Amino acid sequence: MNSPLTHFDEAGNAAMVDVSAKDETVRIATARGYIAMKPETLALIRDGGMEKGDVLGVARLAGIMAAKKTPDLIPLCHPLMLSKVAVDFTIDEAGSRVEIEATVKLKGRTGVEMEALTAVSVAALTIYDMCKAVDKGMVIGGVHLAYKEGGKSGTYLGPAA
Amino acid sequence: MNSPLTHFDEAGNAAMVDVSAKDETVRIATARGYIAMKPETLALIRDGGMEKGDVLGVARLAGIMAAKKTPDLIPLCHPLMLSKVAVDFTIDEAGSRVEIEATVKLKGRTGVEMEALTAVSVAALTIYDMCKAVDKGMVIGGVHLAYKEGGKSGTYLGPAA
Amino acid sequence: MNSPLTHFDEAGNAAMVDVSAKDETVRIATARGYIAMKPETLALIRDGGMEKGDVLGVARLAGIMAAKKTPDLIPLCHPLMLSKVAVDFTIDEAGSRVEIEATVKLKGRTGVEMEALTAVSVAALTIYDMCKAVDKGMVIGGVHLAYKEGGKSGTYLGPAA
Amino acid sequence: MNSPLTHFDEAGNAAMVDVSAKDETVRIATARGYIAMKPETLALIRDGGMEKGDVLGVARLAGIMAAKKTPDLIPLCHPLMLSKVAVDFTIDEAGSRVEIEATVKLKGRTGVEMEALTAVSVAALTIYDMCKAVDKGMVIGGVHLAYKEGGKSGTYLGPAA
Amino acid sequence: MNSPLTHFDEAGNAAMVDVSAKDETVRIATARGYIAMKPETLALIRDGGMEKGDVLGVARLAGIMAAKKTPDLIPLCHPLMLSKVAVDFTIDEAGSRVEIEATVKLKGRTGVEMEALTAVSVAALTIYDMCKAVDKGMVIGGVHLAYKEGGKSGTYLGPAA
Amino acid sequence: MNSPLTHFDEAGNAAMVDVSAKDETVRIATARGYIAMKPETLALIRDGGMEKGDVLGVARLAGIMAAKKTPDLIPLCHPLMLSKVAVDFTIDEAGSRVEIEATVKLKGRTGVEMEALTAVSVAALTIYDMCKAVDKGMVIGGVHLAYKEGGKSGTYLGPAA
Repeated sequence: MNSPLTHFDEAGNAAMVDVSAKDETVRIATARGYIAMKPETLALIRDGGMEKGDVLGVARLAGIMAAKKTPDLIPLCHPLMLSKVAVDFTIDEAGSRVEIEATVKLKGRTGVEMEALTAVSVAALTIYDMCKAVDKGMVIGGVHLAYKEGGKSGTYLGPAA
Repeated sequence: MNSPLTHFDEAGNAAMVDVSAKDETVRIATARGYIAMKPETLALIRDGGMEKGDVLGVARLAGIMAAKKTPDLIPLCHPLMLSKVAVDFTIDEAGSRVEIEATVKLKGRTGVEMEALTAVSVAALTIYDMCKAVDKGMVIGGVHLAYKEGGKSGTYLGPAA
Repeated sequence: MNSPLTHFDEAGNAAMVDVSAKDETVRIATARGYIAMKPETLALIRDGGMEKGDVLGVARLAGIMAAKKTPDLIPLCHPLMLSKVAVDFTIDEAGSRVEIEATVKLKGRTGVEMEALTAVSVAALTIYDMCKAVDKGMVIGGVHLAYKEGGKSGTYLGPAA
Repeated sequence: MNSPLTHFDEAGNAAMVDVSAKDETVRIATARGYIAMKPETLALIRDGGMEKGDVLGVARLAGIMAAKKTPDLIPLCHPLMLSKVAVDFTIDEAGSRVEIEATVKLKGRTGVEMEALTAVSVAALTIYDMCKAVDKGMVIGGVHLAYKEGGKSGTYLGPAA
Repeated sequence: MNSPLTHFDEAGNAAMVDVSAKDETVRIATARGYIAMKPETLALIRDGGMEKGDVLGVARLAGIMAAKKTPDLIPLCHPLMLSKVAVDFTIDEAGSRVEIEATVKLKGRTGVEMEALTAVSVAALTIYDMCKAVDKGMVIGGVHLAYKEGGKSGTYLGPAA
Repeated sequence: MNSPLTHFDEAGNAAMVDVSAKDETVRIATARGYIAMKPETLALIRDGGMEKGDVLGVARLAGIMAAKKTPDLIPLCHPLMLSKVAVDFTIDEAGSRVEIEATVKLKGRTGVEMEALTAVSVAALTIYDMCKAVDKGMVIGGVHLAYKEGGKSGTYLGPAA
């Protein structure tokens, strides 16, 4: 019996699976996550803007660029010609965290959920890097697939989490 | 007044900060995180091993290689000559998750916490990629700095989290 | 009102714009530029050839390879499957400079002017690197889009510059 | 007789020259250049800021990240552990252009002028990319080494250009 | 007369050749090679598996990831969206060597033989790296194209070698 | 008992081994290999030079640049600041092959044999790519470590092969 994990062949060897027979369709994926921090750190990010340093602007670019590097980072991901990447942030004062959402779009033969999850993760890591001088205790969490559309497996709607 | 965020200059412009005057000392950082999943997915990973597909072996390599790419991913990180990278996993049956720990070591002029956090994040993303055919609802969380040693700021011990 | 700069959304946030609805057409772009230097430096390049060192051969390859790296360098560029890259040089004795021209071709959904401009720039930088031991005062200039064809915006013909 | 171009051996073959015997000293390089454009385009950049899109913030990051990629781009450059990279812009209304200055610092065995020149070039290319929807006629020019310090060859002061 | 070597133009200058007019067809290439070593080294690899260290698992991943980097390594290769990569090993006790086979598949405009040959070479280099502490005398050989299908030039069947 | 393969820990998990306690010494490695081909193909390479296309000039640069990418290609290799890379070719008419030799030098904490072997392999792959239009049957072989100096393990002299 084969592994239900599609990245392994019948002998259990890792392989980049064949997608050449799949249709070229429009595929979209949205991933979400957050980075939790001290309220003072959140205030620095919120008040920063252009004058004191635009943490979220740097993190947004890092996330977008990371989406393009996904096949370099995730061993069995296919190289893809992404047609859109967007990364957005919401400041959650009550939860003392920055919420991160990334959406990736492609006209191609395989899904882009890994690209969206990678964009969220690297945006969060970049916020950590920018703020670690004042807050080493930040925690990245809740990184999950929120939405996926296109391709054979149809639409997926993740938990509201 | 300058920003307390060291990656910005007095005008609020992002810059890679000057570390040329820092001492070359041995620096160590350990980061931790987890990926939560369905118990059936965890069982597949645990029972996989060589026969059905070694998910954690692939994720470990991805994490190690990602640590080396950190300056490519995080815009203001310095390029560093890492002298050690290790990534380890613990299967937490009760929590239905894989716990991930990465330790990075360097003899150099700046800390390696971003490298350790990046290794954990990319190892988690790779587990997601390897298992997403059976479980799209996995969640990456608890990614934090657990330990840091060396350099001017001394030893940091994160929460047990 | 939206920004006329298409790489920003209505809130002014950078994003990689959606090209998934664009047609796959043949697109061509030609960029030009030069690097000015002392006449003695130009003579070394001209007389070099195989015997003393082929500066332009190295610069040509660097330009071609850089065109492939454009989406890694320019944050909001789409990854593209270039179908042709050529870089050519003309020695301008009167102007004491090397003129550089790069042409890039693609069958795809977005233009390749950034790839052509990047090829010219990196070819020029490589000439600087190869000759800087004898001439640190070289100046790279006149880097511009000379020609663009294909896609919705039609043909563009730049200044003769 | 050997080529005066140090990147070639006595047979005219390209090689990455041996720097292992050089001292580890602090080395600094500053490069400058500009991108000329229509006054309306310059106004868009100047007035953009956070609301309409921060062109210079994106270009600054692209320049910093490109400095780190220099050994990937310039065939015979040594891999280096840069200890500082900064990119700054001045809006020149009279000349209708953005002036770009990059400074790179290193404690190491070889100079960083190529890293500074690469940062200026890629920052300029990124401005082109961000504004090309409204102005395809922009021209990148005046890219030169302004200042260099450290190492055997001592201090170099370029033209005011 | 033109060079029969297609990567040069009529003046002998290297260029990435134009493939934009080629059909998008399914293309497959298989490459093979081996790494010869001492029988004791081969025994370590064979008996390793999960307990003592999975040399071939690491080498397989390295080969797959290298196939994706081919256009970064081989100057005039086109960037391609590979749709499948697999790397397999056979332990040849009699010959005291590990035989390596890589198969790459693509729906695209140009062949993937370089990707398959690169995967074999980097898998072999990785075995060397993993075992060099006990055997510096290993030799990589017999790296050749075994099979090629698709595109204008039709099917190629290499020597059994 | 630990694995004699140093890239695995006591549990058989791959890791990048700790070199932070090693001395910074000058280390040199030379690797050799060849690519065998039809005599007509060898003649094309030999007669090419500048006029018809400089195959070996392209392959030399590819080999030098690949040495710099070794830590990206070989999963457990340390990032290193190479201080010299040279790649040379000898045309062996009798054997109908091009012999390739790469020498890499470093002042650092770990050896550079993988960098030298990678340079030879990628130079050979590039020759294959440049000549495959006329000769698909070329075979890369004899890739081995010829010489190694520096570090705790002292000087190694490989077979004349």
